[in-house]
Amino acid sequence: MAHTIHILNGPNLNKLGKREPAIYGSITLETIEGWCREAAKGPLEFKQSNHEGTLVDMIQQAEDEADGLIINPAGLSFQSVPLFDALKIFAGPKIELHISNIHARDELHRHSIMSSAVTGVICGLGARGYVTALAAMYDLLEAKD
Amino acid sequence: MAHTIHILNGPNLNKLGKREPAIYGSITLETIEGWCREAAKGPLEFKQSNHEGTLVDMIQQAEDEADGLIINPAGLSFQSVPLFDALKIFAGPKIELHISNIHARDELHRHSIMSSAVTGVICGLGARGYVTALAAMYDLLEAKD
Amino acid sequence: MAHTIHILNGPNLNKLGKREPAIYGSITLETIEGWCREAAKGPLEFKQSNHEGTLVDMIQQAEDEADGLIINPAGLSFQSVPLFDALKIFAGPKIELHISNIHARDELHRHSIMSSAVTGVICGLGARGYVTALAAMYDLLEAKD
Amino acid sequence: MAHTIHILNGPNLNKLGKREPAIYGSITLETIEGWCREAAKGPLEFKQSNHEGTLVDMIQQAEDEADGLIINPAGLSFQSVPLFDALKIFAGPKIELHISNIHARDELHRHSIMSSAVTGVICGLGARGYVTALAAMYDLLEAKD
Amino acid sequence: MAHTIHILNGPNLNKLGKREPAIYGSITLETIEGWCREAAKGPLEFKQSNHEGTLVDMIQQAEDEADGLIINPAGLSFQSVPLFDALKIFAGPKIELHISNIHARDELHRHSIMSSAVTGVICGLGARGYVTALAAMYDLLEAKD
Amino acid sequence: MAHTIHILNGPNLNKLGKREPAIYGSITLETIEGWCREAAKGPLEFKQSNHEGTLVDMIQQAEDEADGLIINPAGLSFQSVPLFDALKIFAGPKIELHISNIHARDELHRHSIMSSAVTGVICGLGARGYVTALAAMYDLLEAKD
Amino acid sequence: MAHTIHILNGPNLNKLGKREPAIYGSITLETIEGWCREAAKGPLEFKQSNHEGTLVDMIQQAEDEADGLIINPAGLSFQSVPLFDALKIFAGPKIELHISNIHARDELHRHSIMSSAVTGVICGLGARGYVTALAAMYDLLEAKD
Amino acid sequence: MAHTIHILNGPNLNKLGKREPAIYGSITLETIEGWCREAAKGPLEFKQSNHEGTLVDMIQQAEDEADGLIINPAGLSFQSVPLFDALKIFAGPKIELHISNIHARDELHRHSIMSSAVTGVICGLGARGYVTALAAMYDLLEAKD
Amino acid sequence: MAHTIHILNGPNLNKLGKREPAIYGSITLETIEGWCREAAKGPLEFKQSNHEGTLVDMIQQAEDEADGLIINPAGLSFQSVPLFDALKIFAGPKIELHISNIHARDELHRHSIMSSAVTGVICGLGARGYVTALAAMYDLLEAKD
Amino acid sequence: MAHTIHILNGPNLNKLGKREPAIYGSITLETIEGWCREAAKGPLEFKQSNHEGTLVDMIQQAEDEADGLIINPAGLSFQSVPLFDALKIFAGPKIELHISNIHARDELHRHSIMSSAVTGVICGLGARGYVTALAAMYDLLEAKD
Amino acid sequence: MAHTIHILNGPNLNKLGKREPAIYGSITLETIEGWCREAAKGPLEFKQSNHEGTLVDMIQQAEDEADGLIINPAGLSFQSVPLFDALKIFAGPKIELHISNIHARDELHRHSIMSSAVTGVICGLGARGYVTALAAMYDLLEAKD
Amino acid sequence: MAHTIHILNGPNLNKLGKREPAIYGSITLETIEGWCREAAKGPLEFKQSNHEGTLVDMIQQAEDEADGLIINPAGLSFQSVPLFDALKIFAGPKIELHISNIHARDELHRHSIMSSAVTGVICGLGARGYVTALAAMYDLLEAKD
Repeated sequence: MAHTIHILNGPNLNKLGKREPAIYGSITLETIEGWCREAAKGPLEFKQSNHEGTLVDMIQQAEDEADGLIINPAGLSFQSVPLFDALKIFAGPKIELHISNIHARDELHRHSIMSSAVTGVICGLGARGYVTALAAMYDLLEAKD
Repeated sequence: MAHTIHILNGPNLNKLGKREPAIYGSITLETIEGWCREAAKGPLEFKQSNHEGTLVDMIQQAEDEADGLIINPAGLSFQSVPLFDALKIFAGPKIELHISNIHARDELHRHSIMSSAVTGVICGLGARGYVTALAAMYDLLEAKD
Repeated sequence: MAHTIHILNGPNLNKLGKREPAIYGSITLETIEGWCREAAKGPLEFKQSNHEGTLVDMIQQAEDEADGLIINPAGLSFQSVPLFDALKIFAGPKIELHISNIHARDELHRHSIMSSAVTGVICGLGARGYVTALAAMYDLLEAKD
Repeated sequence: MAHTIHILNGPNLNKLGKREPAIYGSITLETIEGWCREAAKGPLEFKQSNHEGTLVDMIQQAEDEADGLIINPAGLSFQSVPLFDALKIFAGPKIELHISNIHARDELHRHSIMSSAVTGVICGLGARGYVTALAAMYDLLEAKD
Repeated sequence: MAHTIHILNGPNLNKLGKREPAIYGSITLETIEGWCREAAKGPLEFKQSNHEGTLVDMIQQAEDEADGLIINPAGLSFQSVPLFDALKIFAGPKIELHISNIHARDELHRHSIMSSAVTGVICGLGARGYVTALAAMYDLLEAKD
Repeated sequence: MAHTIHILNGPNLNKLGKREPAIYGSITLETIEGWCREAAKGPLEFKQSNHEGTLVDMIQQAEDEADGLIINPAGLSFQSVPLFDALKIFAGPKIELHISNIHARDELHRHSIMSSAVTGVICGLGARGYVTALAAMYDLLEAKD
Repeated sequence: MAHTIHILNGPNLNKLGKREPAIYGSITLETIEGWCREAAKGPLEFKQSNHEGTLVDMIQQAEDEADGLIINPAGLSFQSVPLFDALKIFAGPKIELHISNIHARDELHRHSIMSSAVTGVICGLGARGYVTALAAMYDLLEAKD
Repeated sequence: MAHTIHILNGPNLNKLGKREPAIYGSITLETIEGWCREAAKGPLEFKQSNHEGTLVDMIQQAEDEADGLIINPAGLSFQSVPLFDALKIFAGPKIELHISNIHARDELHRHSIMSSAVTGVICGLGARGYVTALAAMYDLLEAKD
Repeated sequence: MAHTIHILNGPNLNKLGKREPAIYGSITLETIEGWCREAAKGPLEFKQSNHEGTLVDMIQQAEDEADGLIINPAGLSFQSVPLFDALKIFAGPKIELHISNIHARDELHRHSIMSSAVTGVICGLGARGYVTALAAMYDLLEAKD
Repeated sequence: MAHTIHILNGPNLNKLGKREPAIYGSITLETIEGWCREAAKGPLEFKQSNHEGTLVDMIQQAEDEADGLIINPAGLSFQSVPLFDALKIFAGPKIELHISNIHARDELHRHSIMSSAVTGVICGLGARGYVTALAAMYDLLEAKD
Repeated sequence: MAHTIHILNGPNLNKLGKREPAIYGSITLETIEGWCREAAKGPLEFKQSNHEGTLVDMIQQAEDEADGLIINPAGLSFQSVPLFDALKIFAGPKIELHISNIHARDELHRHSIMSSAVTGVICGLGARGYVTALAAMYDLLEAKD
Repeated sequence: MAHTIHILNGPNLNKLGKREPAIYGSITLETIEGWCREAAKGPLEFKQSNHEGTLVDMIQQAEDEADGLIINPAGLSFQSVPLFDALKIFAGPKIELHISNIHARDELHRHSIMSSAVTGVICGLGARGYVTALAAMYDLLEAKD
């Protein structure tokens, strides 16, 4: 049976490919969405917001609709307890994703508080990390079937 | 004369009763609202939002309309300076409320920065704490009359 | 059936009403005891001591005699592990109370280590907070009946 | 050639002149906007929001439309990584502005994380600091012409 | 020649066997005293107090009367400089004892300041640790003869 | 008119002259009391206790009876908030005294929290520091007359 | 052209499947090696050692022989600068892997210093994470071809 | 009436334009002095010293002679309490100035302790920041007239 | 039935009796081994290594062969997570032993991370502490029989 | 025989009586010098400087000429290691003096590093503290005769 | 008489000249050994190992055979207490050497715990620093003759 | 061609040989200057000052006149940013020198902030370290020729 996956993207990721290319490369979020849709084996939501509250809403919606959740919390990774609390509620497997290796960046972007609320974390694999995360997510979901 | 009270609820409290019942019990926010309306001795606003900015707006509105303010800032308790600043502006009595005993929880949920901006704090008394807070609020307001 | 409550008060509270009125007001501990006796629905102990060891003894006695415990640990809130350990032993509901909002005071008086050993905490509601605590305590005890 | 400037204002600044006058004075944001429009040598946007996400949107819009950016991040100065990330993207000169001297305030309002993402910082010059910032911004832009 | 040993017990140990059995087991202090008396090869004092000052008095008395000192400072281990100073005065061998492994407990119960004032430390061996400490004490005293 | 002075001494000072002579010398508390009585120009109380609570009682008593207070809090200097709170209540001039230079000792004995609750501090002048403190106290009291 | 991959495993991983199954499950390192060999598209080394020095040797050897490196440093993740330095030397893509979600574990096992020396990090995906890492590694290597 | 302004420059600024041009540009202090004299509307002192004590003397002199004070404390910004104390004494408006954005520099050059002793701070606007500071100073002084 | 005990010794203990005699005395590890063999009631392994990896191997071997484990981790006590992880695996009773009182030593030698992974800790009892540990170990094992 | 005393005063003390009178009162340094000369029983040097280096020179000179040294290091108290080192060299008794109670001031003025290099410390006794210090100094010197 | 010197090199130094040339240059350890042999005035051991335990063994061997010890602990400098303890045992002069200036590197490579166990430290003089260290060592040894 | 070297000495080094001989020995700065002049292969300046500002001046002068700089910043090593900034400007090779091993001293004298501004550091080699530094300096300069 096909699993439903929601992929959520945090603040400023709508600017991906136009911003600090030395760190993030020049691939846009639309390109990544295309890769993900191609790799999807079932229904897929792919969304972005600059608003913490909207991301909380999206996670709450995923709780009702999705089997698995992949989230790139971007700048909200480091402080947002509301996002953390919302992730805690989501009962299925959930993967936190970062395009760059946050552990090798500056102090401000180094410690994601989300990490202890998710199943697993993938970072530093670049834009292709989304595809890796999607594959890993199906793996986790199939292991549960 | 009847006092107007606003009760504000922060992120993820719309999920109350469906989430981490070991910590929060299975009572919903609607049930609590019912208890509060029953215990109210005058006009009562009872609102919730997942958005920090909307909660700031709500506090600013309370400044124009309410005599007393009760707030459960939930996940925003621990970092949100905008909420803190908005609470500082509110001139009447204000009570911060937490359903669980935040002092006994994990490091992330232990130190509310809101506490130094309010009149008093009530925590750990469970969902019934709202009713206790409401009674204490009328006490504070009547002492000022 | 009537519940027995013990209310314990820590060091220097015997000087209440005579000391730093800007912070604590001019109400004495005797006045507060009067309010509590008036609000009591059953047997009530109301005690004060300047001695940590005596307060430990009092908590141990409460364990044998009381259904609920309300404690204002005053200056012992911030360091006394013996008091913390004694509170841990008390199996019934227990409320920590502070007259002023300790979260808004100086560093020395800001973090009570007792808070993680009790059911709930009430602070900043002034001398009337004792009456609020007593009402909340009956609420907790009746919920258990 | 005329330069386009965007001036953005963070949470609670819509209450300016009504709040903690001992710190901020009694001048409103509307008065300041008037001063700025008077001093402007070209197109000027002057906006305020209580919502972090909306401010991120505004900075992204400035990236498309403005030559220079002046921002008073208010309560978001101290924690918001999304705002920091958005400021990083803006390629032109950008000045962070605070009405009061944040370095002389309480611990919560002392260290702006925005400061390392901007060209320069001006604080403590009061409401007139906006006019100073605007003049300095034209200076920076003209030096680039 | 027979050596005199004093064994002192700190706050709440009079409740041993009735309290948090998951950590301390169900053996009472009276049972332990019995074991110690059985294992004693000379005069033995075995005392308990909930009062810091009384424990200081007891250590000062031991200085006049005892050859060796065994102390379980319990909740006073973590903060009491008066106890620390009193232990420093005692010139003979002195062993600090904890029933549970304090190093594996919570932050509040992990670092005993007494440890640098004593000859040696034994912890985590359960109630039988008293007998081990007594044997080790005779060893230390006999090595000095 | 003759001023009444109370001089209070904390835990283990009854052992002075018998303990760590390298730090405190071999003068006993009785000798010091003699010096003080000799130097006194009016009524003088000179007391010692190993009990925090008793010292709080003594300070409260001084509040009723003494014009000036000199206290050597010894081991209670570093943690006791009850003593700090009691000292705060005392309205007349109060001098904290240490025989040794606590600033040059180990971390445990270096930062007295009492110091911010008193008028002045004298340390490192040895046992003769009591006489210096007494002279300074009369100076302070006479300046007020 | 086929890429050569070295997979290195740190201390105690030879005990995998026999140890703390609540955290690591009951799959052995031999099973994982089998999965990896099955998924390999070219030469594969799969090694384990309890010795820091030997792991440094293995990384130095990989430098001469391997195109990509996957390492689960286990208990050496948190302190070993020699391992960090050796990883820094390895010029090709390198992935750090943890079976459990280290970010959700105790303080001792939470911050890997290796993370800033590698290309990317994968953790919390369980034993199947090795297969995910291997796939991601081929992706990284093919992107370079 | 013309206002007198003193502009003081700290250690190593006499080397400006010859030193670390990537951070400070190649403009010399003499050029800046020229700009300031051109922009001055009244008497102007413009001085530099490598000596902390001399700078304290200069601030004390300004107290007698100047209406407003602009200071670039350079390397003394981060530790010098004597300079901080001297600035505190100066009763008129005082602006701290840094040519580079100190908030974006290394840890050693990031937190100026002077900032809480002055009216306002300007940094990161380059050598032209002196002219901006001068204009702002006249603004502050005229607002007082 | 006879219990098998393994006693493991960490780096530099092979130099015992030749090194820093002021701290460790002049008794050699061979002497201690002799005492232990004399006191043993069953099979006894007594080993030493300067290599962390070898000690991990030894603990893993003990897991297969020993009923109880006594370890003096020496210089590895303070940082080695691999040793910590290996000790965690060992299911039987395990005692950490230090010859000197590590709590009274310098910062580098004060906090053993091993302590939270073992049953109990004995330190400061000198070379004879091994014999005490052995007796305590038989006690623990017999209590389990 | 008459003892020679040097009294040294640090930065900004030449402004005493003109500065922050709420903290230091309105007595000038000249008045204090007068008191000291009056109380002196032998040769007395009384000097002030705003220059750290000059104060180091003065201490070195005192080493050749003075029997006792009294120093009010003012703003240099908190950071100056050169002053600390110079004080260390002075072999006779030395008293550090502060007019205000530095322990009750802000973080910047609270911890004097000089204190561990001197014999004793006197603070908070106001301008009269100089006379107290002088008397105590003769006491110390006479005790040595 | 000729002095015997042992020069020991820590992890990854066998890769010197092949690794991070921007920091270490392109000179190999073999070249350095050649320089040292040329400069030696007596027997010289020159060794390298990636294994902490082996380096401990080597230092213990030096204790028996060498008059002076030069060690570049490389990545083990920052954490290895076993190495520290072994160095402490070595009674002759010992010099710690680093090729690069570790004080100017990243946080992980900045504070060597070895430094307080050796006679002196030389760093930042490049590969030629070995020759400088050797000369200084003969100086130290000859001064002792 | 002969290289010009400047050797600068910080506060209190003029007292060398007369001060704390247990740490610094009894060799005077004049003796050291003699050794250096003897070892010099070209022009040599050898200066000392107790004044930070004068040392900044001396470094600025060296910039114009010297090829290499050797500095013993003494008590200014630990806090002086002006000295640090001046050293940064000096473009040639520069060696920081300490007679004693600062890493093995007290907290106040342990971390030189100068170290990251110089080429290399030599410490703990005693007064002869100056000669070693001079030799190393010629080495560095000759390597550049």
